[in-house]
Amino acid sequence: MGARIGVGLLGLGTVGGGVAEILLNPEERHPLVADLDLIRVAVRNVNRPRTVELSDAVLTTDPSEVVNDPNVDVVVEVIGGIEPARSLILQAIANGKSVVTANKAVIARHGPEIASAAKAAGVYVLIEAAVGGGIPIIEPLKQSLGGNRINRVSGIINGTTNYILTRMANEGAAYADVLAEAQRLGYAEADPAADVDGLDAADKISILSALAFGGTVDRDALPTTGISALQGRDVEYARQLGYGVKLLAVAERLAGQGDPLPLSLRVQPTLVPSDHPLAGVNGVNNAILVEGDPIGRVMFYGPGAGAGPTASAVVADILNIAGIRQASGDQGPVDPLLAAGSWRPCVLADSGDIRQRHYVRFNTEDAPGVIGKVGGRFGDAGVSIQSIVQFNASEAGAEIVVITHEVSQRKVIAALDAITSLDEVSGLAAHLGCL
Amino acid sequence: MGARIGVGLLGLGTVGGGVAEILLNPEERHPLVADLDLIRVAVRNVNRPRTVELSDAVLTTDPSEVVNDPNVDVVVEVIGGIEPARSLILQAIANGKSVVTANKAVIARHGPEIASAAKAAGVYVLIEAAVGGGIPIIEPLKQSLGGNRINRVSGIINGTTNYILTRMANEGAAYADVLAEAQRLGYAEADPAADVDGLDAADKISILSALAFGGTVDRDALPTTGISALQGRDVEYARQLGYGVKLLAVAERLAGQGDPLPLSLRVQPTLVPSDHPLAGVNGVNNAILVEGDPIGRVMFYGPGAGAGPTASAVVADILNIAGIRQASGDQGPVDPLLAAGSWRPCVLADSGDIRQRHYVRFNTEDAPGVIGKVGGRFGDAGVSIQSIVQFNASEAGAEIVVITHEVSQRKVIAALDAITSLDEVSGLAAHLGCL
Ligand SMILES: NC(=O)c1ccc[n+]([C@@H]2O[C@H](COP(=O)([O-])OP(=O)(O)OC[C@H]3O[C@@H](n4cnc5c(N)ncnc54)[C@H](OP(=O)(O)O)[C@@H]3O)[C@@H](O)[C@H]2O)c1
Ligand SMILES: NC(=O)c1ccc[n+]([C@@H]2O[C@H](COP(=O)([O-])OP(=O)(O)OC[C@H]3O[C@@H](n4cnc5c(N)ncnc54)[C@H](OP(=O)(O)O)[C@@H]3O)[C@@H](O)[C@H]2O)c1
Repeated sequence: MGARIGVGLLGLGTVGGGVAEILLNPEERHPLVADLDLIRVAVRNVNRPRTVELSDAVLTTDPSEVVNDPNVDVVVEVIGGIEPARSLILQAIANGKSVVTANKAVIARHGPEIASAAKAAGVYVLIEAAVGGGIPIIEPLKQSLGGNRINRVSGIINGTTNYILTRMANEGAAYADVLAEAQRLGYAEADPAADVDGLDAADKISILSALAFGGTVDRDALPTTGISALQGRDVEYARQLGYGVKLLAVAERLAGQGDPLPLSLRVQPTLVPSDHPLAGVNGVNNAILVEGDPIGRVMFYGPGAGAGPTASAVVADILNIAGIRQASGDQGPVDPLLAAGSWRPCVLADSGDIRQRHYVRFNTEDAPGVIGKVGGRFGDAGVSIQSIVQFNASEAGAEIVVITHEVSQRKVIAALDAITSLDEVSGLAAHLGCL
Repeated sequence: MGARIGVGLLGLGTVGGGVAEILLNPEERHPLVADLDLIRVAVRNVNRPRTVELSDAVLTTDPSEVVNDPNVDVVVEVIGGIEPARSLILQAIANGKSVVTANKAVIARHGPEIASAAKAAGVYVLIEAAVGGGIPIIEPLKQSLGGNRINRVSGIINGTTNYILTRMANEGAAYADVLAEAQRLGYAEADPAADVDGLDAADKISILSALAFGGTVDRDALPTTGISALQGRDVEYARQLGYGVKLLAVAERLAGQGDPLPLSLRVQPTLVPSDHPLAGVNGVNNAILVEGDPIGRVMFYGPGAGAGPTASAVVADILNIAGIRQASGDQGPVDPLLAAGSWRPCVLADSGDIRQRHYVRFNTEDAPGVIGKVGGRFGDAGVSIQSIVQFNASEAGAEIVVITHEVSQRKVIAALDAITSLDEVSGLAAHLGCL
């Protein structure tokens, strides 16, 4: 048995409750768990009924009592939101405590500020739970894949939207109906905007990108499309063409180098070929695919949220800090691999330069020659097409669905402009990405 | 830039060459890679042409020059086999050097001896590349999943056999034909026994088991069935019933506790339902599924062998050691989480107690009532059946395929004994596991 490590919790909700549950029941887990003492826990309301039993001396409504407690070595921030989370994290660091947080919103926006404070104080800030729930992805990216030149990180990193998309695909149900049901079942929040508008996925992919490529980009400039405008018919047409639709988050380097390194980060509903490893990721599961040289392609798959899985990730971070503290005694210098940090400037690439495949659907007249004209405009713009299919022809008109080969955003936009000005085309009805 | 770390290589073959390639080309990788110096490399034949260019001063045919070189901080053992690998690893440890190895054979057999030598010397022995090629699985098991009570680790951890099984399934080809082709293409060794007899997978699952459950079991007592007796017709019948056939390695705790903790480890061809995450793992890819509480189920997927992926894993381990050395200066005490080690005694469970589903095929007379008799004998033995199907009825006889529900090995064996003594049954033609 090694030295005891004091843990303080900010928040005892879904995740905090799961963490407390593990710390209070160390049996059958890694023996280091038994060396962790839960010292102090801050909540808003001490009288709220909880699934874990804690003595009154442990609970407090004043979070500063947690971050200032001299017996607390590691502060776990699971309150959520930007403030007071950010200030409490910085206060804990200033007090020489390491921090573990599940808060992607604060890390995506204030990561560099927090990381440099941690570096100055010689403490760790670990964030395994902030992306992918229980899936180990942060530490593998920092530690296990460091020998690679990473080219792309992509994945399904929001469980709520993946649950909705899975049900839309399986049942042919409409977005709004599935959302309402998901809210009833507790898989979606009363205010679902952060999930369905893609903001949560955007926070997470910007965190993964910073670790994979060594520098942050402007989080607020990240092109983000959620699923709230996604129509059931596009899910159905995609299925007929051999694809599933997933809310995909991508961070990739553009061809070539550049200083700062130009990256494309984006979140958008994307067609995934049905034999692609990400296509089988259903329900609230998440999966992250990392592509690099020389490793090729590795995928990490598992439960993307929930009390147990997220707590598993939080406890992993606490154990990492505890292990190093037991090895190096009190405050030693910080392992650069575990600490991570920026090592080169990165920047969002010009959106016109981003290359990918596209799925588009037009409403058109049901007249001979329309497919030819649409195809011709793509050709004129230098966009080569993989398939062009007419669906649902009737007196009211027809729908033309096009899947392109990989092409720059610039050329696609030029083609779409030319096509939507055709007399026979009444509008662009859908525009999704495609793997 | 931190302190420089000297690396010595034992072996410059497939894996060693890949490692040298990364060390000599640090650009675009984690910045710590640039702090690694390749000091000394042992091979058998210095005149063999190599893809990496090394000066004559670096190459040697005397491996003791690597493990005794005072400028070498980390020794990478990628020679393979038991001796001289084991002795060289122990010599390096005795000299106060940390060791990185991809050698599952030596770790599965001499892991405890090596681990205790490392502990006594205060150095690390890291083995990420020994299981799953480039897939990060060792460090996640040691570090990221430590908050869990692990219940089962299972997976496809031999690329050669998975390549053969994938081609058998896709092409309806016979085992011997595919093996010959795989040897021609370099996916199987001239002597394929270690792979096709399941011995390599058995080495690897015993390593994963030790990390997941905290103690080793008797490697040589591990029930191991390879794929060399697998018949194409069983792959085909499995497909018709909705399953793929994979060479699955499993390590699981039996229900209840016990001291020492009883575990079932086994390697056997196993039916995997086609919607199971492992069913889509094809070709030389590997995947490892970890099940625990509270995490649920996470899966790690990627290339299970090859120069690049395996070198990626070796370099990850070197970086881990380099990071800690840079943080803690020369020789500090060792981080218990990164070091791992046994923490409780484990033992192989009585094979009769192992519970799983089974697939069996009998050759029988093509006569009315045989299915009823076979089903009846299962029932008498307390084995409940999920499906019983007759294939290929003809004058020469019929085949009856049975898939059971989960049941103890003891009951299945009693049922099979009773069935094979029936007059109408000429023999047990196949017996596989089933998920
Ligand atoms: N839920 C998941 O599956 C999941 C997955 C990954 C990451 N995360 C992240 O984990 C964090 C926590 O999420 P959660 O789902 O656990 O949230 P939650 O269930 O709403 O719990 C929040 C906790 O923080 C406490 N709290 C809020 N404001 C406080 C304040 N000013 N002072 C003291 N305590 C305060 C609350 O106290 P009361 O109990 O008294 O109200 C509650 O215990 C978020 O950053 C979230 O994004 C969650
Ligand atoms: N290949 C893979 O994809 C893979 C994947 C995971 C793990 N592994 C493991 O990695 C290890 C190495 O595999 P490998 O495929 O790289 O083997 P390999 O290609 O056969 O290379 C072995 C190397 O060791 C050298 N060597 C052998 N005996 C030696 C001795 N007594 N003294 C000095 N040098 C000696 C050889 O020298 P020469 O070059 O002069 O002959 C050669 O460079 C094995 O433990 C294997 O199980 C391999």
